[in-house]
Amino acid sequence: MNLAIERVRLTPVLVADPPLLNTQGVHQPYTPRLIVEVVTADGITGVGETYGDTKYLELARPLARKVTGRRVSDLNGLFRDADEVAVDASRVVGQADVGGLRGVQTAGKLRLSVVSAFEVACLDALGKALGLPVHALLGGKVRDAVEYSAYLFYKWAGHPAGVPSEPDDWGAALDPAGVVEQARKLAGRYGFTSFKLKGGVFPPEEEIAAVRALAGAFPGRPMRLDPNGAWSVETSLRVAEELGDVLEYLEDPALGTPAMAEIAARTGVPLATNMCVTTFAEIPEAFTRGAVQVVLSDHHYWGGLRNTQHLAAVCRAFGVGVSMHSNTHLGISLAAMTHVAATVPDLHHACDSHYPWQSEDVLTERLVFEGGRVAVPDAPGLGVELDRDRLAFLHRRWLDDDGALRDRDDAAAMRAADPAWVTPSVPRW
Amino acid sequence: MNLAIERVRLTPVLVADPPLLNTQGVHQPYTPRLIVEVVTADGITGVGETYGDTKYLELARPLARKVTGRRVSDLNGLFRDADEVAVDASRVVGQADVGGLRGVQTAGKLRLSVVSAFEVACLDALGKALGLPVHALLGGKVRDAVEYSAYLFYKWAGHPAGVPSEPDDWGAALDPAGVVEQARKLAGRYGFTSFKLKGGVFPPEEEIAAVRALAGAFPGRPMRLDPNGAWSVETSLRVAEELGDVLEYLEDPALGTPAMAEIAARTGVPLATNMCVTTFAEIPEAFTRGAVQVVLSDHHYWGGLRNTQHLAAVCRAFGVGVSMHSNTHLGISLAAMTHVAATVPDLHHACDSHYPWQSEDVLTERLVFEGGRVAVPDAPGLGVELDRDRLAFLHRRWLDDDGALRDRDDAAAMRAADPAWVTPSVPRW
Repeated sequence: MNLAIERVRLTPVLVADPPLLNTQGVHQPYTPRLIVEVVTADGITGVGETYGDTKYLELARPLARKVTGRRVSDLNGLFRDADEVAVDASRVVGQADVGGLRGVQTAGKLRLSVVSAFEVACLDALGKALGLPVHALLGGKVRDAVEYSAYLFYKWAGHPAGVPSEPDDWGAALDPAGVVEQARKLAGRYGFTSFKLKGGVFPPEEEIAAVRALAGAFPGRPMRLDPNGAWSVETSLRVAEELGDVLEYLEDPALGTPAMAEIAARTGVPLATNMCVTTFAEIPEAFTRGAVQVVLSDHHYWGGLRNTQHLAAVCRAFGVGVSMHSNTHLGISLAAMTHVAATVPDLHHACDSHYPWQSEDVLTERLVFEGGRVAVPDAPGLGVELDRDRLAFLHRRWLDDDGALRDRDDAAAMRAADPAWVTPSVPRW
Repeated sequence: MNLAIERVRLTPVLVADPPLLNTQGVHQPYTPRLIVEVVTADGITGVGETYGDTKYLELARPLARKVTGRRVSDLNGLFRDADEVAVDASRVVGQADVGGLRGVQTAGKLRLSVVSAFEVACLDALGKALGLPVHALLGGKVRDAVEYSAYLFYKWAGHPAGVPSEPDDWGAALDPAGVVEQARKLAGRYGFTSFKLKGGVFPPEEEIAAVRALAGAFPGRPMRLDPNGAWSVETSLRVAEELGDVLEYLEDPALGTPAMAEIAARTGVPLATNMCVTTFAEIPEAFTRGAVQVVLSDHHYWGGLRNTQHLAAVCRAFGVGVSMHSNTHLGISLAAMTHVAATVPDLHHACDSHYPWQSEDVLTERLVFEGGRVAVPDAPGLGVELDRDRLAFLHRRWLDDDGALRDRDDAAAMRAADPAWVTPSVPRW
C-alpha cells in the first residue's frame, strides 16, 4: 500500500447560486468553489472542496506542489507545508470579497481555508485505501445521521434581468408570508424541523415579524435569526427581547467580541457566532468574556475536520455549544461536514447548510436530506463520487468567465439591480 | 477485515519500583499497573496500559464486557460505554491512594483513566490491522523522535530492610551531591539534556541547593523542580526568585488554582502543572486567571491519545504550553506517549518519564532513549510486543500479593521505615 500523494488536481468551478440576500448584498448568479483531488501512488483519488476565490486558488497552487510526495495519512504535515507557503498580504485584507461575512481575515486563516480541502481529500483517499469511512478515521460516529436546519433567505424570484443565471423554482421571499412559504417548501422537500433566517436585510421590525410568522407556522420549532452583525447592541437587545420566547439562539447580532459580550450579559437569549470567533486565536477573549454561547464551525476556515474536533473540545471545556456554519458549498463539503459532525459528541444544534440552494453539484449522486438529516455515509472515504462531466462543465464556466465572477462579491451583484448600492456600514440598524 | 472486538483481557501486574521519595512518602517496592488487551475477530491483539489500583481494575472489568463487539476504530464509542459504567463513589475520594499527586479525583477522571488504556489498545490493534503506526492514525508525526527529561528523585539506596523488593543500582540520592550523581548516571545512560527534580521532600533550601548544584554540573541545561504542591505561595515565590535564572519552569509549587494564579502573577518563572489542571473542567478557571503556563498531560487521566491532542489544541489557543507528566509506567505507555507526542506540533518542553526507573517491563524489547529521545516507532500499531512470560510473571506477583500492594500508598510505604510517618498537611513549607 503506497499512500504517497503522486499528484494533486485543482479544479476551480463556478456553480449556480440563487439570488439570496444578505446585509452586504446578494449572492452572485454563480459562485466560485475549488475542488481539490489528491491521487496516491496506488491510483486512489480523494476529493476535497473549499472556497474558490482567486486568493484561495493562488495559495492552493504552490501548496499542491509542496504536498506531493507526502502520505495521505500525514495530515499534520499538510499544515506544516501550508505554513511555508507565502501569502500575499494584499490578498488578505482590503480586496473586494465577502470576508466580512466570514469574520476576521488573516494569512493564517486563508491558509487554513485552503489546507482544509487538502485534509478532506487526504482523508477521503486514506479511507478508500483502508476501506474505512472518514468518520472512522476521526474516532468513529456517535450518531447515524446528522441534523441540519432549514436555511431561509430573503430572496428575489430571480437574478436581475439581463444577468446570465440559472432559474430556480423557489420563488421570491421578501416578507413574512414569503419566508413562511419558503420554509414550508424546504420543510416539505427535506423534512427540516429547525429554521434559520438570514437577516440583516430589512429593518429589524420586518425580520422580527418574519420570525414570528415562522414560529406561528411551525409552533415549538427552534428558530434562529442571523443578521451578520448588522445591528447595534441596543437593537440586538430589542430583537432578543421581542423574540426570546421562540429563538434557539441569535446569531452574530452585532460585530465583534465586545459588542457580543455586552449583548450576552444583558439577555438570556444564547448568542451564536461564525463571525466573532472564527479562529483559535479569537477564542480566549470571547470565551473569557462569555460573548458567545454557540460557536458555528466552518471546517473550511477552521482548518479541516480534525481542527473542527479540536474546536469542539475547546468549546466543551468552556461549556460553549458547537454547531456548524455554512457558506455556499457542494456535496463534497456536505459529506465532510456530515462525517465530522457525526463524531462530535456534544452537537446539540442542527447544522446549517446551503446545500438545498445548490441545484448544481460535482457528484454522481447528490446527498439526500431525510427528516432534515443526512445519513452518515459508511462507504470508504467520504462516500461520494465525482462526476467528471459535471466537474468539467462547471470548470468550463469558470474558464469562460472574464473574471467578474471568480471572486465572490455580493455588493457587486447587488449593483446589477441597484447601481447606487454601497455595502452598508455597521451597525446598519 | 473484521475490526470487531471479540474479547478483552485485563491483566493486573505488580512491577518493581525503587524507593523514590516524594512529599507524600516513598514509592512502594512494587506498584500496580493494569495491562489491557483487545483482541479482534481477526485475531489481532492491541495493548494498552493504565493505573492498576483496585478502583481502576473494578471499573475496567465491566467496561471490558461492554466494549466487546465494538470495532476498534470506534474510539468515541469507548467513551460512551465508559460513561455508562457505574463508579462506586466511595472509590473516588477518601480511600488511601496517591490521588493527591494526580490532582482532583472525580468519577469522570477515573473513567477516563481506565478508558485511556482501552483507547490505546484499540489504536494499537487498528494500526496493526491497517499496517499503520499509531501516530499515522493520529494525523501523522511531526518529529521522528520525542525528547524526554531526566526525572530525578531523592532516593534511598534500597527499600527498608525486611521489606521484599528488587535491588537497584542507582544508589542513594539525599543531598545535592547525590542528586548530581544520579543526574550524571541518567544523562550518561540515556543522554538526557534537561532535568527535573521531584521535590517537596526536604526543606526548600536543600532542594534549592540541589537544583543549583545541578545547574552547576549541567550549565545552560533546562532545570525543573516539582514539590507536588508542598509549598505556600510565599515559599514558592522565594524558590522562584532564588532559582529563576536556571528554571525552565516550576511545577506545582502550591496546591490549587488560586495559589498558582497568585504565584504566577508575582513571578516571571513559568508554572507547570499536572495537579491543578488535570481535567478539561479545570481549564477555564486556570487559563482565565493565568495560573499555569505549561500543562503536563498524562494521557491516562486525560482520557487517551486523542484527548491529549485536544488538550494540546486548547493550550495552543490560550497560549499555554503543553508537555507530558509521568507516573510509574511501563513500555506500552511510553510508546503511547511517544506516538502522541510526535503528533503535537507545539511540544516545546521535554516530556517526563519514569521509565528509566522501571527495571521490569512486559515487552519483548524495551524502548530505548538515545540522546534523551525515544525514536517514534513506524511499525504498525504502537510498535511494541508483549512478552507473555514476563506478563505472567508480574501478574503472578499481583495474584500472590495479599492486597497490601495492590493500591499504591506512598505513605504506607514510608511507614515501613518510619512508623510515625503521617502524610504531611500542605503547605508543608
